[in-house]
Amino acid sequence: MIIVIQCADRIGLVAAISGLLSQKAFNIISMQEHVDKSEQLFFMRIEVDRTDGTPELEQGLREILPEGAIIKINPDAEKKIIVLVTKEYHCLADILVRNYFKTLGASVQCVIGNHNTLQDICRRFDIPFIYIPFAGDNHGFEESLLDCISGYEYEYLVLAKFMRILSAGFVGRFDKKIINIHHSFLPAFAGASPYRQAHERGVKLIGATAHYVTDQLDEGPIIAQQIIPASHSHTVQDMVKAGKEIETAVLAKALKLVFDDRVFVYKNRTVVLE
Amino acid sequence: MIIVIQCADRIGLVAAISGLLSQKAFNIISMQEHVDKSEQLFFMRIEVDRTDGTPELEQGLREILPEGAIIKINPDAEKKIIVLVTKEYHCLADILVRNYFKTLGASVQCVIGNHNTLQDICRRFDIPFIYIPFAGDNHGFEESLLDCISGYEYEYLVLAKFMRILSAGFVGRFDKKIINIHHSFLPAFAGASPYRQAHERGVKLIGATAHYVTDQLDEGPIIAQQIIPASHSHTVQDMVKAGKEIETAVLAKALKLVFDDRVFVYKNRTVVLE
Amino acid sequence: MIIVIQCADRIGLVAAISGLLSQKAFNIISMQEHVDKSEQLFFMRIEVDRTDGTPELEQGLREILPEGAIIKINPDAEKKIIVLVTKEYHCLADILVRNYFKTLGASVQCVIGNHNTLQDICRRFDIPFIYIPFAGDNHGFEESLLDCISGYEYEYLVLAKFMRILSAGFVGRFDKKIINIHHSFLPAFAGASPYRQAHERGVKLIGATAHYVTDQLDEGPIIAQQIIPASHSHTVQDMVKAGKEIETAVLAKALKLVFDDRVFVYKNRTVVLE
Amino acid sequence: MIIVIQCADRIGLVAAISGLLSQKAFNIISMQEHVDKSEQLFFMRIEVDRTDGTPELEQGLREILPEGAIIKINPDAEKKIIVLVTKEYHCLADILVRNYFKTLGASVQCVIGNHNTLQDICRRFDIPFIYIPFAGDNHGFEESLLDCISGYEYEYLVLAKFMRILSAGFVGRFDKKIINIHHSFLPAFAGASPYRQAHERGVKLIGATAHYVTDQLDEGPIIAQQIIPASHSHTVQDMVKAGKEIETAVLAKALKLVFDDRVFVYKNRTVVLE
Repeated sequence: MIIVIQCADRIGLVAAISGLLSQKAFNIISMQEHVDKSEQLFFMRIEVDRTDGTPELEQGLREILPEGAIIKINPDAEKKIIVLVTKEYHCLADILVRNYFKTLGASVQCVIGNHNTLQDICRRFDIPFIYIPFAGDNHGFEESLLDCISGYEYEYLVLAKFMRILSAGFVGRFDKKIINIHHSFLPAFAGASPYRQAHERGVKLIGATAHYVTDQLDEGPIIAQQIIPASHSHTVQDMVKAGKEIETAVLAKALKLVFDDRVFVYKNRTVVLE
Repeated sequence: MIIVIQCADRIGLVAAISGLLSQKAFNIISMQEHVDKSEQLFFMRIEVDRTDGTPELEQGLREILPEGAIIKINPDAEKKIIVLVTKEYHCLADILVRNYFKTLGASVQCVIGNHNTLQDICRRFDIPFIYIPFAGDNHGFEESLLDCISGYEYEYLVLAKFMRILSAGFVGRFDKKIINIHHSFLPAFAGASPYRQAHERGVKLIGATAHYVTDQLDEGPIIAQQIIPASHSHTVQDMVKAGKEIETAVLAKALKLVFDDRVFVYKNRTVVLE
Repeated sequence: MIIVIQCADRIGLVAAISGLLSQKAFNIISMQEHVDKSEQLFFMRIEVDRTDGTPELEQGLREILPEGAIIKINPDAEKKIIVLVTKEYHCLADILVRNYFKTLGASVQCVIGNHNTLQDICRRFDIPFIYIPFAGDNHGFEESLLDCISGYEYEYLVLAKFMRILSAGFVGRFDKKIINIHHSFLPAFAGASPYRQAHERGVKLIGATAHYVTDQLDEGPIIAQQIIPASHSHTVQDMVKAGKEIETAVLAKALKLVFDDRVFVYKNRTVVLE
Repeated sequence: MIIVIQCADRIGLVAAISGLLSQKAFNIISMQEHVDKSEQLFFMRIEVDRTDGTPELEQGLREILPEGAIIKINPDAEKKIIVLVTKEYHCLADILVRNYFKTLGASVQCVIGNHNTLQDICRRFDIPFIYIPFAGDNHGFEESLLDCISGYEYEYLVLAKFMRILSAGFVGRFDKKIINIHHSFLPAFAGASPYRQAHERGVKLIGATAHYVTDQLDEGPIIAQQIIPASHSHTVQDMVKAGKEIETAVLAKALKLVFDDRVFVYKNRTVVLE
């Protein structure tokens, strides 16, 4: 099972934690740590070979770690997610396929769309699709979203090319729980029509960024980024098409990292322990 | 030899040009063309097997091409360049090594530095180094630069980590003749301290951009870009160090493209015919 | 529509072809050519703006091109394909999704599996799945395959992780019509268990190769290749998992190039005009 | 300073080592470990904040680690290297430049060439160049090499495009001390003329591999590999040219890893703790 720890740094933490695991006869399969020296923060992910004795282990860790430590002991439980979409299929289809073949590392509870374009593909995979059209009233739209979401268990909301901007009020209810794929190499080309912006600027690479959503539009902590070459011969439409491939790949990679408990968030940044 | 053509697009240009070459018994070794449809512009680079008969060829092309066509017939003449530097050695050393081994595609006439840190490496390669310290007066500094530059023949000024901003007045004198390496994946992190900006933003990739310098700081036409992965474990200093490798590689690639007559500039964009 | 030409090289071909198009009032949207100098072969792909007058155009081309020229004029007709699979889903699911959303550039006629593992995913997309189990007799198996294939129209057979070796006799019937994805960076690790071979060799990159199938196992003309980093921390299983992502991406890219009439085959090599 | 440990794996190693460091008041700046489960081997690299007390620390580690443990405590001493070359300049020039600017992480003692082509570039950097021509007698040649090498202190021999094959007898004297750059993506195209082989095979990527030299030609443990795209338009000469860039980059990266004490060798494989 996986143990993740995030706390203030101090000397001897690795010795104390590995000593405790050794004393309680947990065998370490893998261990990664990181210290942010400027913030004096300690991050650790440990994979151990047993899943019993969890409460005693947590209690033991609590005693040796600094006050305020975040400790998550995850006995391999699968995450549950809700996916939000608009019209573009590429990220959703990739998620549905992995979900169907049990390689997503999470279980899709439902898909919510502000258009109904993607209803049929969900039906084919027996995943509930809820169509919540935007009727011009953002507050009402978000209320309907909240209503719908509240009917499901979930750990994360995944915005798989969901093309509406969510209000700060909405986002504030889901701290570090919303993951978005942005179709540019952020922070370049934040905001609308990034491929049009990229084309006008004549860039030679285009990219995609998966990030946590905060109340600062396109400014949340970055989880993963990737790029592909572009050239003068790419029209905006060519860039959009090429971009879809990289968006799919980057979101898939980011979700895998998150569902694997490898991503820590602090101060608008992430630590990714691979 | 190389023939480059940039002109208004119209039907039959390829047929007309290739017909003329065939009629004048120039054998085409390679030919690349691009049409920017929105701007109705035609770009072509042709390599032919002979170097004689150039004036007649140019005259012939002039007759079949639209008015205002830019025609450059380049009988393999090596370019001459002047390099401007500050303190960092990596791009300059790469240029000096290639120059020494005759693989740069250009000949370095001199190196000008606003610090004298890199004087010795130039001396070792028998390349004149001119030290023009910045004494607090930008106008005076640029006058000294102009004086110095005017003493040499050159086609391009290469800013190889030259860390002073040149005024619009200065840049205006060298249309499409100044090439810079910027230590970020433009347009992200334009301006000062891009690695510090990148670190604070928590990006997962860092990049470098080679571009023509215009009077818009860091906004000139992009020639080449490249990135390398970064992570939470990179300090700003690590990013700077990793960045140097990519800066060297991107500037080298861009210079090769320019000296090979593969780069066309228009409307703050480039067409690169590879 | 797309015009592709492959013929012996001679001076004036570009002029002759572009002249003919201009005379017949076909407007060239894009044109790429390549000459293999050692083989004296000429390759060209042209996109023009009209689809009428095809027979006259072909007749005209025939008159100006060297004898034996291969000319294909493709009025945007969609290709038809048959997909062969075994148990792994990743390449097939990607093809089915693109087929469903009409972005594959081809139409999947049926899927044939030597296991029935992937029957259900095909059913969900309303694609016929034919299960032909291998019963120990290769000749009988291939006869069943041929029977089944003969019931469909198709231009290409796509081996999407089809894990049986086809005999030279079988392959010989489908000249330049079978495309395979091999799970290594060929020619490294040809043959069985490439990831196990790669792991034992301790490579730092793993790759995938899409290629035409010839009677030389894993030796056919390469269409596309790509790699991802690996490290000492990858077990064979990790390499297999990471490899699936790259296999999916490389096969998708290769199919797009083939269906777009960009791939020319000669002498166990390809020319890819992008 | 850096501490590296390689020993048989057993439960509690991390706790024991980090406990000892904590008790002796060494502050851990960074720590990476790896366990090869199939071989039951443990690898660790630790950076600590002090350089005193080294003998006591080594004694303490010896007491808590399994018998036969390899322990290297490296108080930041710079490595010394000898470079062997033939005619190609790119890798050597990169090493000389980094050596001159003190960013190589090692100090070049001398350069030995079986041709004298690169004598002048060494002279310009005040590095001794010893010319040992090959006179047709391999035994005599290697004796001269050994004579020359024995006059210098060194930790590593770097073959920077040294194009002669060294005998098993010669290599056997330098266990894990010779590093080579091979101009292909090994194990593809081992042996002579890899670019010619790659061109004939029509690959779409070309690569370079830095590896330790063993008595098995081109079969030693791989340290680093990298690739760049190639296409049908690359002649063998183009591949050679493009390959030089990647060879330089890969060798530079491998040397940095080795000089930084990040590379562990066992069973023809490496563990690279980054």
